[in-house]
Amino acid sequence: MKALWLENNELQLRTDLPIPESPPGEALVRVVRAGICNTDLELLKGYYPYTGILGHEFVGVVEQGPEQLIGKRVVGEINAVCGQCRFCRNGQPTHCENRTVLGIVNRNGAFAEYLTLPVENLHPVPESVPTDVATFTEPVAAALEIQQQVQVRPSDRVLVVGDGKLGQLVAQTLALTGCELLVVGRHQDKLANLAARGIPTGLADAVTDRAFDLSVECTGNPEGFVIARRALRPRGTLLLKSTYAGQLTFDASSLVVDEIALIGSRCGPFSPALQLLAEGRVDVEPLIHARYPLGEGLAAFERAQRRGVLKVLLDLGGEP
Amino acid sequence: MKALWLENNELQLRTDLPIPESPPGEALVRVVRAGICNTDLELLKGYYPYTGILGHEFVGVVEQGPEQLIGKRVVGEINAVCGQCRFCRNGQPTHCENRTVLGIVNRNGAFAEYLTLPVENLHPVPESVPTDVATFTEPVAAALEIQQQVQVRPSDRVLVVGDGKLGQLVAQTLALTGCELLVVGRHQDKLANLAARGIPTGLADAVTDRAFDLSVECTGNPEGFVIARRALRPRGTLLLKSTYAGQLTFDASSLVVDEIALIGSRCGPFSPALQLLAEGRVDVEPLIHARYPLGEGLAAFERAQRRGVLKVLLDLGGEP
Repeated sequence: MKALWLENNELQLRTDLPIPESPPGEALVRVVRAGICNTDLELLKGYYPYTGILGHEFVGVVEQGPEQLIGKRVVGEINAVCGQCRFCRNGQPTHCENRTVLGIVNRNGAFAEYLTLPVENLHPVPESVPTDVATFTEPVAAALEIQQQVQVRPSDRVLVVGDGKLGQLVAQTLALTGCELLVVGRHQDKLANLAARGIPTGLADAVTDRAFDLSVECTGNPEGFVIARRALRPRGTLLLKSTYAGQLTFDASSLVVDEIALIGSRCGPFSPALQLLAEGRVDVEPLIHARYPLGEGLAAFERAQRRGVLKVLLDLGGEP
Repeated sequence: MKALWLENNELQLRTDLPIPESPPGEALVRVVRAGICNTDLELLKGYYPYTGILGHEFVGVVEQGPEQLIGKRVVGEINAVCGQCRFCRNGQPTHCENRTVLGIVNRNGAFAEYLTLPVENLHPVPESVPTDVATFTEPVAAALEIQQQVQVRPSDRVLVVGDGKLGQLVAQTLALTGCELLVVGRHQDKLANLAARGIPTGLADAVTDRAFDLSVECTGNPEGFVIARRALRPRGTLLLKSTYAGQLTFDASSLVVDEIALIGSRCGPFSPALQLLAEGRVDVEPLIHARYPLGEGLAAFERAQRRGVLKVLLDLGGEP
């Protein structure tokens, strides 16, 4: 089969890969749509040493697996877990010690004609949700993880730093809490997406220092971190939502003096994400900037890396 | 009067300073004992640009102020606050936007014959508590701040990194929660203090990676941070208890992947600290390594900066 293969920080289009065989408990899924995420771009830069098929945002159709799923469109949680370790037993399966992660850690990913995932990872996509939209389930779930970790009150002043793919979804999900939200970024057109939904936006220098209860860093660069940090009132919380390739340096004393909490945030819950998409309460269509067939995957990556480009989809076609 | 004056990162013994006049709402306190804290040593290194009398851990006797306090031994909270700003009104006076801080920010400190503080900052010392012991109220309160910020459960595995002054008090207060505690440090004799109280101790390489729910960094150096970080399970919490002169660099991606919370921690509640000292549930006597009169304050600082030395007291005598 065809797939985008990462090896030694280099991406190649391969056509010589076998269709995977699904191990016991796993389903074989034919991929129909997949999304390129910043984590994929970071993996290309060497953020984490991974060799294999890239990709973890997808919609597919089940070809082999439980009868009630055959022929159904599904999305899939990306952590395949052991169910036995202390984290699995403690209800924190996304931190399973023995996990593989779709297209990220020891498990071939979604930029391919086929993938396999444990059956329990799969969520059927409601009929009302278009395939393009459902491809955003994983990043919307990641955005919702913030609200799994900290209580966002309607009276909270919240800053989202970054108007990219993740920042847009984080902003939209946070807006639903009724909090007093501001999103800052560098791109007028991207901010306009949010402004059109009634979300206040501005350029980074619009941020008042020490005014926010919560800030969310969605840029993945040190400048974004500085803005998110400076914006916080004492005892405020900074959510780190982006994976960084490289080290972050900061003034630890100011963290102590202001008693700031810095919290890393990763994968989130799929069911509420799918529900928000089904209800149209998160609008992802304006985020789709381009669409390529899998065979033009390298061009798709080139496009995704260009400044100002939001979501690039790989369209393999063949929905049921 | 005599006092230890910091200016341009240099400490001098001055004898030409006037006895301060207490502004309305403040009391005049004659200092009888004061303790040298690591923050004093960091201020000397330029951690924060401060000019004035150093010192914030003290016991004194009220000379001018409310009648019921005159002649009484007192300790004092170090943040003098406005009572008007949003933090004061929100019940977070230690983060007052207009605060001065005894011996740290725009307020002459305790390494002097006299100081003034707002009357509401003062806490009478119970008769049963010796003056030496009461001098530790401020750092014991700072140790208790951890439990104001995070819930420490008896079932939690907790690591304290650092066997210095602060680490010793943090360890003793955390031990009272019944948690599964380990303290690591570099000094067998300091660790022996804690072992004598039944607290498990070890050298830094005794720490199992990814095993602890909570770690507390009390060394103020980057090596301590690395140990505290590495020790945490996913979704664990790292309390930063030390002020650092300088920047801290860390792998932000690992914080995101493991969803770690990093929380700065500063001043804590005085009343429970005094109570623990009164009940003898925190033992500070073994921490006292030396005692100097104020006139030998520079020698006291030299001693306090020596490797392996715990608390150095300035003894001005004259208890009631």
